[in-house]
Amino acid sequence: MPETPTTIIPLDLAATSVDITRQLVDIHSVSGDEGPLADAIVASLADAQHLEIIRDGDTVVARTNFGRAQRVVIAGHIDVVPENDNVPSRYETIDGDEYLWGRGTVDMKAGVAVQLKLAAELTDPRVDITWMWYDHEEVSAALNGLGRLAANRPDLFVGDFSILGEPSNSQIEGGCNGNLRIEVRAFGKRSHSARGWVGSNAIHKLAPVLDTLAAYEAREVEVDGLVYREGLNAVGISGGVAGNVIPDEAMVHINYRFAPNRSGEEAIAHMHDLFGDYEITVVDLAEGARPGLDAPLAQEFLAAVGGEAKPKYGWTDVARFSALGIPSVNFGPGDPMKAHADDERVLTSQITSCEQALRVWLSKS
Amino acid sequence: MPETPTTIIPLDLAATSVDITRQLVDIHSVSGDEGPLADAIVASLADAQHLEIIRDGDTVVARTNFGRAQRVVIAGHIDVVPENDNVPSRYETIDGDEYLWGRGTVDMKAGVAVQLKLAAELTDPRVDITWMWYDHEEVSAALNGLGRLAANRPDLFVGDFSILGEPSNSQIEGGCNGNLRIEVRAFGKRSHSARGWVGSNAIHKLAPVLDTLAAYEAREVEVDGLVYREGLNAVGISGGVAGNVIPDEAMVHINYRFAPNRSGEEAIAHMHDLFGDYEITVVDLAEGARPGLDAPLAQEFLAAVGGEAKPKYGWTDVARFSALGIPSVNFGPGDPMKAHADDERVLTSQITSCEQALRVWLSKS
Repeated sequence: MPETPTTIIPLDLAATSVDITRQLVDIHSVSGDEGPLADAIVASLADAQHLEIIRDGDTVVARTNFGRAQRVVIAGHIDVVPENDNVPSRYETIDGDEYLWGRGTVDMKAGVAVQLKLAAELTDPRVDITWMWYDHEEVSAALNGLGRLAANRPDLFVGDFSILGEPSNSQIEGGCNGNLRIEVRAFGKRSHSARGWVGSNAIHKLAPVLDTLAAYEAREVEVDGLVYREGLNAVGISGGVAGNVIPDEAMVHINYRFAPNRSGEEAIAHMHDLFGDYEITVVDLAEGARPGLDAPLAQEFLAAVGGEAKPKYGWTDVARFSALGIPSVNFGPGDPMKAHADDERVLTSQITSCEQALRVWLSKS
Repeated sequence: MPETPTTIIPLDLAATSVDITRQLVDIHSVSGDEGPLADAIVASLADAQHLEIIRDGDTVVARTNFGRAQRVVIAGHIDVVPENDNVPSRYETIDGDEYLWGRGTVDMKAGVAVQLKLAAELTDPRVDITWMWYDHEEVSAALNGLGRLAANRPDLFVGDFSILGEPSNSQIEGGCNGNLRIEVRAFGKRSHSARGWVGSNAIHKLAPVLDTLAAYEAREVEVDGLVYREGLNAVGISGGVAGNVIPDEAMVHINYRFAPNRSGEEAIAHMHDLFGDYEITVVDLAEGARPGLDAPLAQEFLAAVGGEAKPKYGWTDVARFSALGIPSVNFGPGDPMKAHADDERVLTSQITSCEQALRVWLSKS
């Protein structure tokens, strides 16, 4: 897309976090198009004397440097999945509850709105804070803005605890499952199907693979007090040459979501235990993250927010912080089941409660 | 392709049948391009006073009308599957045996060459003969020239016996298996694979289908003295939405080759017996053909050719004649395993023996 001169309009961070969410949703920022939103964020914080601003591509970092004993990293991605007639935003009332409806309301502009508001407001927090708003979370891991920043500016990734504003109904969700995808292949010998006995059918050879998948009982694993539910699923299957040919190759594409007490290497070994008779190709691997709730700051945060911490099933960038040695939890407004949905919408009361909990915890008592 | 004016060069039907095969192979006639070859055939028989010539598209019929007590239909298709660097033809000697190599040598220009030579030569046969050389056999059944002729000129399809020159190592192969293709579908419920238990995996539901296919013991069935071997095979499998989605639909494409004592309807019923728990869609159905060897003319032909009749496994147009009430066998030079092969080649001695057997049987003793 050719660059066109645009006027940068700063966000109004003095508005309510619900209203800021609405401002964010109405700025188009599908992955790859985050530039205008990143510009708006930088412009909005230009006058904040308590913040050092760093920009890397369309990722914006804002941090305090008060020399506090502890530092917390608070992060959120500013991109969204493609729109589907669900912008601009609007308010809806369902069963007496007010919702803000539109692409990104849940995943995760409400979380970013809360963070932006507090970044501007908290000029004297009790810990140092590194705010990170990053691009390209909803696409290939290779494009992820947080990953790029970690490579370009590893010095920014210091902290005693981190909070990722991914939707979690404004409750704390600790850690995340790991995510492995493999291709399992069977081979045979091609022949004309009129004389099938001359060949050897690769699709038929996949029968034990599907049997194993259908019979598999996924583990429920307690890690640091949270119970993670695993999952083993075929997400694709293919094979076949023509309607009259015995196929010589067939493949099942398998997704294994594994609890964070298992390493990626162990997850791969488990696949070899299950499907060792076949050719196995690892397509994608993301390590899980332990919940990190044993860190002292995490315990304090948990106490401040109240309620009960839950496991996060889906993979999020908490795993990235966890791998860098920074305990990390998910905490943001919105029901994750509505993420990416065409009727994506967030309870406005969750935005407010998230804001309030973070403010209380980050302020001097 | 635009029509271009071409000079029609007649075939030299006084040459040996091996040489005529070579002439035919060197005229390009991939399905859809049979025009020049049909033109050459018509031109070659223009002076044959004993033959009535009928043309329908690129199908040529030549028949005697002597008022004999019996009539035999002898047919062969003039199209070939696409070339793959295997034209023009050449002679090869392997282990002391002479072969003619090239696209169509087996399937089935050698058979057509024998038929053309005898059509011109046999001016006083002991039975009336209807020769049929037709287009579009190697493609969709809807395009088949013999099918079109049967619709346009049903009056031509009279006879007491028919011979199709499909490759059969110059031995008699009787009848053919029927051919059924179905799609078997399983359905589930889509969900994110991080929470797979919310959905229902359609691919996993195919496990019993593959188990049934892998364990299936195909029948060997004797029909009119010949043993037909059946076959049940997956020829394709598909399913999957994305690497992180539990698929809600999956399909196995199944090919059932069934012995000619089973009707198409019975074959479909058998599939419902096996896969009744699934949605079944019939994609393609071709009835089989009983061997037809109990017909008196067939018995005489068998005695004249010698050797032992065998079953034909692949589907051929004998089924079309059989359905019209004309007993039909396959009899032509060439090893059917070499049909469509890149190294397609025919033993020249089989061309000669086929010619000799047909000549003896068709001539007055």
